Amino acid sequence: MSARSGLINETSKGVYVIAATPFADNGELDLESVDSLTDFYLEKGVTGLTILGMMGEAPKLTEAETTTVMRRVLKRVEGGVPVVVGVSDASDRNVERLSHEAMSLGAAGVMIAPVPNLKTDEQVYAYYANIATLLGRDIPICLQDFPQSTGVHTSVAVIHRLVDAFPQIVMLKHEDFPGMRKLSQVREKSVADGRRRISILVGNGGLFLPQEMLRGADGAMTGFAYPEMLVQVCRLFHEGKPEEAEDLFNIYLPLLRHEFQYGIGLALRKETLRRRGAIRSAYVRRPGPALDATDHAELARLIGRLEAALA
Amino acid sequence: MSARSGLINETSKGVYVIAATPFADNGELDLESVDSLTDFYLEKGVTGLTILGMMGEAPKLTEAETTTVMRRVLKRVEGGVPVVVGVSDASDRNVERLSHEAMSLGAAGVMIAPVPNLKTDEQVYAYYANIATLLGRDIPICLQDFPQSTGVHTSVAVIHRLVDAFPQIVMLKHEDFPGMRKLSQVREKSVADGRRRISILVGNGGLFLPQEMLRGADGAMTGFAYPEMLVQVCRLFHEGKPEEAEDLFNIYLPLLRHEFQYGIGLALRKETLRRRGAIRSAYVRRPGPALDATDHAELARLIGRLEAALA
Amino acid sequence: MSARSGLINETSKGVYVIAATPFADNGELDLESVDSLTDFYLEKGVTGLTILGMMGEAPKLTEAETTTVMRRVLKRVEGGVPVVVGVSDASDRNVERLSHEAMSLGAAGVMIAPVPNLKTDEQVYAYYANIATLLGRDIPICLQDFPQSTGVHTSVAVIHRLVDAFPQIVMLKHEDFPGMRKLSQVREKSVADGRRRISILVGNGGLFLPQEMLRGADGAMTGFAYPEMLVQVCRLFHEGKPEEAEDLFNIYLPLLRHEFQYGIGLALRKETLRRRGAIRSAYVRRPGPALDATDHAELARLIGRLEAALA
Amino acid sequence: MSARSGLINETSKGVYVIAATPFADNGELDLESVDSLTDFYLEKGVTGLTILGMMGEAPKLTEAETTTVMRRVLKRVEGGVPVVVGVSDASDRNVERLSHEAMSLGAAGVMIAPVPNLKTDEQVYAYYANIATLLGRDIPICLQDFPQSTGVHTSVAVIHRLVDAFPQIVMLKHEDFPGMRKLSQVREKSVADGRRRISILVGNGGLFLPQEMLRGADGAMTGFAYPEMLVQVCRLFHEGKPEEAEDLFNIYLPLLRHEFQYGIGLALRKETLRRRGAIRSAYVRRPGPALDATDHAELARLIGRLEAALA
Repeated sequence: MSARSGLINETSKGVYVIAATPFADNGELDLESVDSLTDFYLEKGVTGLTILGMMGEAPKLTEAETTTVMRRVLKRVEGGVPVVVGVSDASDRNVERLSHEAMSLGAAGVMIAPVPNLKTDEQVYAYYANIATLLGRDIPICLQDFPQSTGVHTSVAVIHRLVDAFPQIVMLKHEDFPGMRKLSQVREKSVADGRRRISILVGNGGLFLPQEMLRGADGAMTGFAYPEMLVQVCRLFHEGKPEEAEDLFNIYLPLLRHEFQYGIGLALRKETLRRRGAIRSAYVRRPGPALDATDHAELARLIGRLEAALA
Repeated sequence: MSARSGLINETSKGVYVIAATPFADNGELDLESVDSLTDFYLEKGVTGLTILGMMGEAPKLTEAETTTVMRRVLKRVEGGVPVVVGVSDASDRNVERLSHEAMSLGAAGVMIAPVPNLKTDEQVYAYYANIATLLGRDIPICLQDFPQSTGVHTSVAVIHRLVDAFPQIVMLKHEDFPGMRKLSQVREKSVADGRRRISILVGNGGLFLPQEMLRGADGAMTGFAYPEMLVQVCRLFHEGKPEEAEDLFNIYLPLLRHEFQYGIGLALRKETLRRRGAIRSAYVRRPGPALDATDHAELARLIGRLEAALA
Repeated sequence: MSARSGLINETSKGVYVIAATPFADNGELDLESVDSLTDFYLEKGVTGLTILGMMGEAPKLTEAETTTVMRRVLKRVEGGVPVVVGVSDASDRNVERLSHEAMSLGAAGVMIAPVPNLKTDEQVYAYYANIATLLGRDIPICLQDFPQSTGVHTSVAVIHRLVDAFPQIVMLKHEDFPGMRKLSQVREKSVADGRRRISILVGNGGLFLPQEMLRGADGAMTGFAYPEMLVQVCRLFHEGKPEEAEDLFNIYLPLLRHEFQYGIGLALRKETLRRRGAIRSAYVRRPGPALDATDHAELARLIGRLEAALA
Repeated sequence: MSARSGLINETSKGVYVIAATPFADNGELDLESVDSLTDFYLEKGVTGLTILGMMGEAPKLTEAETTTVMRRVLKRVEGGVPVVVGVSDASDRNVERLSHEAMSLGAAGVMIAPVPNLKTDEQVYAYYANIATLLGRDIPICLQDFPQSTGVHTSVAVIHRLVDAFPQIVMLKHEDFPGMRKLSQVREKSVADGRRRISILVGNGGLFLPQEMLRGADGAMTGFAYPEMLVQVCRLFHEGKPEEAEDLFNIYLPLLRHEFQYGIGLALRKETLRRRGAIRSAYVRRPGPALDATDHAELARLIGRLEAALA
């Protein structure tokens, strides 16, 4: 796929922040917070946004809400940064519909996780091959490899077959865990076989970001509530300063590790964004995690320690 | 909950057939087949219908399609039999919205499976308690207990706590597997403790229907493509003729067992319904199972053997 | 692998019954029942035995008990029929040790299920390739493909790679569920590619035995407590009488389906064997399933119905 | 259970290091390294040892090797510190046998994880209740709550029922993840209900040790290859210096997080122990993780960074 203006491509790098979806305390979409959160991310220097992923509570939105969020964010960024839209769905038809909607509204590409219950290499390949064929060559695709949530394991061999067959697959959101060797293998076997090199952005809250950058990642696609750190760490790596990058990363690691917790991590992230003034409510739609008094005190203490370390 | 006209309640029994959702070969909803399938079920003597369950491919419909299917089926039955509507969703808000929509269109009650990732008794109880509270006392609820698909195990203790606390919970769709002892325990502990007796209808394709009727089930909620057998078996049990019932059941068992296969079972069921003239296409939305030539020949052979046995 | 006397090979067919391991009511090994059960199987005409599989409660035996069971059964059959020994273990070293022990005592081959946590085609292949290399060309291997228990999915592609690389892999115990298409694919792709044809024996309690025989299975490797039926069904298929075979099968299907239930199925099977005089106690080691009064009555009724149908 | 000399009890606290089991490069037990590793742990000031846990590769040992490891470690510590022995097994009989063997050799208690496939609160309770009854009141039990590995979720309610019913249950190895709220609930509901307070030691590599100590943990039961840090952190917490404790912890956090990776974490831990001179080979029995050149370089770099930070 030729690098068209505004679209993600194989050379994409930096930080594509996984955007939360802000709600009011009554559970309604909070559109003003959508704006302020978008502004917050932009101010922190992110390269792009990824909206309507799992951490964006996409499965809990109505279709109208989904459209509203896409539209609102894409309008707010005004083309300033690329926006990837999560379009995973139980039905191919819905993936197709959502993808076309996103692209027509100005998205830079779509992110797709496989449906559950794919078991063998052939099944995973066939799923993605079918989707890629449906979407055609003009919609750039980011593969979301997150087996802890989907239960689907996408092997290095499958990734390579897909990259070879579908030029529109330009990016891998890598969040298999543990998955560092896999990242290295995707990179090394690409080089060894003269294969097209795709962009790899890492997830898992960024828990292994420095190690992954050294193994060939191009950046991060995760939603840590201090995205400015991710931005700076990636920049330092791109400038050839891995030690400085990791020194900086480690200052935030205690809080980042705290946010890494599955489930409750989303509530912690939203609360941190709320404390930082990015959104007005930390509400997570039900069923979903909610912080109790101890969780709040614990988070406040960790943020306090971070601020002290940064001071 | 008092037994209001047209609503499911604790005394509901018989066969609530799990209705397929018919599509054309191009994947579009086939509304004429929705009608003809509804007629087919009614002609076979079912007590009620359950629409938009997992086998109804509910997660693959758009919101508009969901409404269309509800409306079309409910209009077609003209209040002749009760229709239960599956409203399971990742978000409580959506469960609530779908439930109100279904009831306003004339549904007899709603069926709800838990969201994944509920692990302990307390978590399962809390999930359903919250939903029941949200829906209020006027919407009869059927608990769908299908751990093979949801990964959630609803214990006998949780079922009893829910029955005690929420009069609107009137029915259990029992399809834990193996689950016969559980069925007995739900029944026996209800009697032993003087607890409200709820309706129990069994799923799993009806594979253990005779045994389950003897253990206290009130009927079946499953989608076997020969619902007339289920109807007659349940009637014979209610008439106190378990041996005749099981003799009849066993004639169909080879085909029923074939349809019991997870995944491909839906394609087999739709193809059988198509062969019987109930729908025009056996199409299953993608990703989903499709029959190959061997599957077709195998199914045809089994149907042929059944017809020979019935002749 | 050349067909050496007494060893399983690619042409093995018929019924290799999965043997239960009999205990006394106090949980101790019952060696007299090991003998009587072996005799029972032989009298029913089985082609071979498979001992120390999952249904043989192998993980609950001590090492000494494992050796005792191997020795006792192999002595009792006196080379009359081939005996396959299950040697699955968390450690390669133990697989190797058990395999050598089994072969030295006169086993016809070993059956190996993969360790859990293998996710991709490459991982499954590598596991078996390593084991096959460790065991060498003189120990015939039966692959046990039972993802419902192991969580590991062995793809058609992996099976073929293994067959191509390791002549000692001569047999597949097929019990993926649903798995009929997989069986056909293993067969058809072997023919299409001019590949070595291996023996395929089916498990899953034999629930789909007639369909699987028509798709190219060579027989059954399962423990249904009426093995004489399995023997006769396989014989009829080999004689080209599929309709007669299936007619016979269907008489037993209600009981076979009952025994098919995971977990409690083992207790039902042992109790049926006890009622038939094959063993003295139906005890299953703890933690494990135990029948209650309702289970007993239900089983008795199903056996009674079978006997009436056979009379 | 009265606190008998040398046995773990409700007041146990500090660091019970999860001991690796050292092998030679050829896979054989390396008994000299068992000694040197035991010495290493003692020198680092651990309160106790836990041997033959999952990270001790217990399922890959033969019975004789298991006995040898117990005997060797217990002899080496000479009663200097308590040693908890992992005795989890598929069979109750084996749990009983191993427990008696361990206690007779001088163990301070046994650690037991549940068998897989326990689904409901009642099933989990029944499993442990049965084991506790079998073992009797004289063998102190540590519950291992590690659902990521066992698939079994032990609820707060079950833990409390067990604590109430069985005085020999004196300790919880807490490694549910995320599990911090659970830890708080176990503590708070004990206080609220006037319940016996048990010892809680945390696992998960210690990733959340400071937070867990603040929530009421009594220490750590994990195998981080720098146990001296765990020892000092726990001591500082017990001395009422949480900020100092966490400052120290955070210096090690980058490496600790690295070792936290499931699967390969064991290979990283053993290699770190090897580099520190505690064992002679980092070999992990097969199938199992092995480090490649990139893994080695990455680990060396992280250790180098830690050493620089400590210098």
